[in-house]
Amino acid sequence: MKLLDKSQILARLDLECAAALIRQGFIAYSKGQVQLPPVQHFAFGAVNGDCCVKSGYLDGDELFAVKVSSGFYDNPKRGLASNQGLVMVFSARTGEPVALLQDEGWLTAWRTALAGRLAAELLAPQRIDAIGIVGTGLQARLQLTALQAVTPCRTVHVWGRSAKELDAFTAEFEPRGYRVHATLNAEQLARASQLIVTCTPSTRPILQAGWIQPGTHITAVGADAEGKQELATDLVARADLIAVDSLAQCSAYGEVSHAMKAGLVPVARLVELGRLLAGEAPARQSDKQITVADLTGLAIQDVQIAKSVLLAE
Amino acid sequence: MKLLDKSQILARLDLECAAALIRQGFIAYSKGQVQLPPVQHFAFGAVNGDCCVKSGYLDGDELFAVKVSSGFYDNPKRGLASNQGLVMVFSARTGEPVALLQDEGWLTAWRTALAGRLAAELLAPQRIDAIGIVGTGLQARLQLTALQAVTPCRTVHVWGRSAKELDAFTAEFEPRGYRVHATLNAEQLARASQLIVTCTPSTRPILQAGWIQPGTHITAVGADAEGKQELATDLVARADLIAVDSLAQCSAYGEVSHAMKAGLVPVARLVELGRLLAGEAPARQSDKQITVADLTGLAIQDVQIAKSVLLAE
Repeated sequence: MKLLDKSQILARLDLECAAALIRQGFIAYSKGQVQLPPVQHFAFGAVNGDCCVKSGYLDGDELFAVKVSSGFYDNPKRGLASNQGLVMVFSARTGEPVALLQDEGWLTAWRTALAGRLAAELLAPQRIDAIGIVGTGLQARLQLTALQAVTPCRTVHVWGRSAKELDAFTAEFEPRGYRVHATLNAEQLARASQLIVTCTPSTRPILQAGWIQPGTHITAVGADAEGKQELATDLVARADLIAVDSLAQCSAYGEVSHAMKAGLVPVARLVELGRLLAGEAPARQSDKQITVADLTGLAIQDVQIAKSVLLAE
Repeated sequence: MKLLDKSQILARLDLECAAALIRQGFIAYSKGQVQLPPVQHFAFGAVNGDCCVKSGYLDGDELFAVKVSSGFYDNPKRGLASNQGLVMVFSARTGEPVALLQDEGWLTAWRTALAGRLAAELLAPQRIDAIGIVGTGLQARLQLTALQAVTPCRTVHVWGRSAKELDAFTAEFEPRGYRVHATLNAEQLARASQLIVTCTPSTRPILQAGWIQPGTHITAVGADAEGKQELATDLVARADLIAVDSLAQCSAYGEVSHAMKAGLVPVARLVELGRLLAGEAPARQSDKQITVADLTGLAIQDVQIAKSVLLAE
């Protein structure tokens, strides 16, 4: 069994290869060619921790994977990373363990960012004067980085809850050639950006419907569990096209679930990313449309990015 | 992270310590102090394989565990073990991986056998002239071995489907001081034994009600998934006491589920092993009673036996 630590994994991670495999994973998922058992959850209330176990298999493939992804939010006080995730890869021919990837959550972070890239490739308008990034954490940084493959735009509006975090974001991206407009006012960001990614753990809507200009695409990745919400329900309802990674998950707890539960969006209005990627349904059809992609995260993304790392050896 | 292979794990396995921890696990489970998310299943039809992921956590404990247990039944043709199971143990304080136990299914096998021992300690009659073992596989051997702690009886009737397997069983246990009566006739076994363990993957009842003598205890461990059955439904219905490891699992697919679905056994007749072990419900009350224990297997057993191995270091 191969053991790879975080630095070895990141050294082997080829974003193009990973994006191609994740794309294939979404398509297979929407065709019903993926085994994705129910997610397992643990709560460790006393230490402000949680853990989920996500497993997936693309039918006919050589490998399957089991991801254990934990967040222990008091870890930084002890000098440890909050996320202690790892991915185990097994042979689908013999069951033998093939690799243990101790990625500390980086593969999850990248597969999420690459899903954002795939959504933007399908749904972003042609002209992008500014990118809007809602959130200042790791995922916000990776989403912006992943969008380099989608658009030459290097003007970014970033929203956060603290000036300190915004300063850190700015300090990271200005040297990389970005014009960074940091703001504590999400409306400013929304009115100025044509390609927005929301990546916060917010439980209350940050973006309001009235702020969004025609021709905007929004990818929302924060709502990965019940109770989370980044977009106002009427914003989702107003979208001309609503893409989801999974009809089942997004209806249950994704960003769109709030609008669905409010009766504003019937399930028939949702289209899975895999169907868009396969060309089975039309993506953006004009530069005036408002489009939303709701990404809750699928274990097949974990499987595919893990495979991409193993291919690199 | 500690990496232990099968031989290192078996060298560290202390059955008394493991049994004590598993006992504690059953009690905690029945008190609702255990987190056991739904089991994840995969099927690999093309290669006659399957896999399940079972995870558990005893609330307040230092560690939690995720077990990946696979059966690839064509593996022996390639010189590989069918079971390629492993158990990962994590800190419940920080989420850090603590140990990877590549036990190739041995921990599952032993935790199942030790549950059989715990059930027999509670429910076996005082006088045991003969033990009956239905099945000749690894689990049959471990169940018989585990019962050494319960009774001095070394007379065993063993039933199997092939003379070759029965011969192998006999050849293993006679040198260990057992008088082994091998038979292809399950009735013979049933009529002669007061403590019976069924451990086959049978999908049709092997033991019939009329064969079982008063004062017999039967532990059934084979029915760990839908469609499996070792005991006739009227045998289960006739029992004076029906113990189950989990009301939920046993009602869904355990040995007793068939009698329940036939309307022969109401759920109120079942009592969880953890309640018996805690002394919250009476175990065997006379030497005339027929008792049945239905063990479908709980991830908390995996957690506890894994902990026992780590304690041994």
